[in-house]
Amino acid sequence: MTTQRIQDFFATRRPDGPCLVVDTEVVRDNFNAFKHALPDSRIFYAVKANPAPEILRLLASLGSSFDCASVAEIEMALEAGATADRISYGNTIKKERDIARARALGIDLFAVDCHEEVDKISRAAPGARIFCRVLTDGEGAEWPLSRKFGCVPVMAVDVLEHAVNHGLQAYGVSFHVGSQQTDLDAWDKALADANAVFRAMAEKGVTLQMVNMGGGFPTRYLKDVPAAEAYGRAIFSALRKHFGNQIPETIIEPGRGMVGNAGVIKSEVVLISKKSAEDKVRWVYLDIGKFGGLAETMDEAIRYPITTTRDGDETEPCVLAGPTCDSADVMYEKKPYPLPITLTIGDEVLIEGTGAYTTTYASVAFNGFEPLRSYVI
Amino acid sequence: MTTQRIQDFFATRRPDGPCLVVDTEVVRDNFNAFKHALPDSRIFYAVKANPAPEILRLLASLGSSFDCASVAEIEMALEAGATADRISYGNTIKKERDIARARALGIDLFAVDCHEEVDKISRAAPGARIFCRVLTDGEGAEWPLSRKFGCVPVMAVDVLEHAVNHGLQAYGVSFHVGSQQTDLDAWDKALADANAVFRAMAEKGVTLQMVNMGGGFPTRYLKDVPAAEAYGRAIFSALRKHFGNQIPETIIEPGRGMVGNAGVIKSEVVLISKKSAEDKVRWVYLDIGKFGGLAETMDEAIRYPITTTRDGDETEPCVLAGPTCDSADVMYEKKPYPLPITLTIGDEVLIEGTGAYTTTYASVAFNGFEPLRSYVI
Repeated sequence: MTTQRIQDFFATRRPDGPCLVVDTEVVRDNFNAFKHALPDSRIFYAVKANPAPEILRLLASLGSSFDCASVAEIEMALEAGATADRISYGNTIKKERDIARARALGIDLFAVDCHEEVDKISRAAPGARIFCRVLTDGEGAEWPLSRKFGCVPVMAVDVLEHAVNHGLQAYGVSFHVGSQQTDLDAWDKALADANAVFRAMAEKGVTLQMVNMGGGFPTRYLKDVPAAEAYGRAIFSALRKHFGNQIPETIIEPGRGMVGNAGVIKSEVVLISKKSAEDKVRWVYLDIGKFGGLAETMDEAIRYPITTTRDGDETEPCVLAGPTCDSADVMYEKKPYPLPITLTIGDEVLIEGTGAYTTTYASVAFNGFEPLRSYVI
Repeated sequence: MTTQRIQDFFATRRPDGPCLVVDTEVVRDNFNAFKHALPDSRIFYAVKANPAPEILRLLASLGSSFDCASVAEIEMALEAGATADRISYGNTIKKERDIARARALGIDLFAVDCHEEVDKISRAAPGARIFCRVLTDGEGAEWPLSRKFGCVPVMAVDVLEHAVNHGLQAYGVSFHVGSQQTDLDAWDKALADANAVFRAMAEKGVTLQMVNMGGGFPTRYLKDVPAAEAYGRAIFSALRKHFGNQIPETIIEPGRGMVGNAGVIKSEVVLISKKSAEDKVRWVYLDIGKFGGLAETMDEAIRYPITTTRDGDETEPCVLAGPTCDSADVMYEKKPYPLPITLTIGDEVLIEGTGAYTTTYASVAFNGFEPLRSYVI
């Protein structure tokens, strides 16, 4: 997964300290793969996955639309060359004054999941298009999906009707099957729920137009994941099954699937030690950890591929930890990580598949360590 | 816990968006309480808890020493007026070039917990004083203490002997009973281990001089915690018990106990909703969450006191979540938080006891939200 361009960057630039390098050619390939796999869907890149200006500019030039979580992300997408009609304010949790700021920037598409959010939008962005997020159970996803976003389908019907009654355009339904979703059937169940909302609204005389199928498309970490085409086929057949000949306009919001495999973090082994002479397991401490960009190792959820210059040598299981004085800054312990026995203090390791959800998760200055640097090439 | 000075600040300055306000008078009181409770111990403030320059300057002027986790923190302590002899490099995980940089800044006191770290220090800071961290089990602590730092006592003896053999000064032993430790007996067990290392080293002809008793001193969140004097008494009696008339030089490293109760975060209710008409529990979304500074709500570890302008009204349990599009950004759900039924979107809430481990934990820009602003008054 470390492309030749990334290898060349490290070889010639030799940056000191931990850093992420993202290869835009991989992002371009991912965008084209999504476009090819789901030719009738509009792609809204989930900006939160990696908002680097170079990535946003590339995707804007390729015709991508953008799913934004805040006014700051909307401004970044506009700055990158996207027009307002290619931007959705996809966060269901918005201050009313932020909705007004987004509206002033020309944004006309908003996510909701309750009456209260509809009320805010009807005041701050009268007449706007809204879509209501429906709860899914997230089964099969590697990154935990809580009940934080969305409401049950029967309530979504109420919310959409409430929107119509308050002068908004009830535009569609959204769902999210859970991040790093590897079960192709997850979309089938969610699309059945979406269709139920479409039918209930039709009975009330309101024709919904759009299904926002969210993200969840996985990137390859240690295990192989289905290719974009496999997702495309599964999703298209689920759309056919539930919507028959009346397939609605669809949106997808890849984030991890767009940039995850495009990035590699370079890190350095700071210390290797044992806790007692009898200990079987060595502790390997890197110069990056949970608070420096690898927050998704929380509860050991995401398991990144790690390569070393000693690969091929015999391995043994290691506990992998970060460099801060925080005892919670341990990445893999319950399930130790196999690393070469010959691994040595000062060695460089590459943490692959780190293009998404790393740089912006990094803490400002925890323990005095600077945030993760990033190079987009 | 919201002092009059903090209340006045909010009333007159009316800052927009979430922010932390720290009252230095509370920090001063805490410092004096520690000094009074443990008059024979040197206080090394754990800079990582809150490195705001105003806090460091105040503590430097009061005579505090500083426990630093990185070269950047060492530079901040020096900048605040501390001399190098009042600074320890307390992180057991250090790059050799960082040890050399610290040495160049005059630092002469380093933490270790293994042979490998001793080797680095003997090369980069020859002759320096080192203390070896001993593992404790952290029982009774609210913030999880892993096995990340320290080694078993028998190995500590080896490490200290190794240090002497490499020209370093074996200065003492350190331990940490776990953050937010409310069991006064925790220090007793750790001091027994420390004494065992002292005795084993004496048999080898090496006299250790110092016990670094770490931090762990709690701050008051929802439950009352023992006062500093109670800790002082318990620690002094444990020192007597294990060291008799030969009580060594001691160090304490309060962080949370020094600044936790000095800070209050102001936040705003962004949304209150339910997931279905039948739901008993309301979801309350604030404009700050796990990635904006409240990282210690991870696994619902730290439960902050929250006050609202509706306090006194009837309450009901709520799920409390942050404003980002991340499903993991939920603070309290397993054990919902009681909040007034009358709480309304737009209401201001105060999250108390947030002076420690908030600002620097905040992510750089996750979801486009800026890091937690902080005012020290």
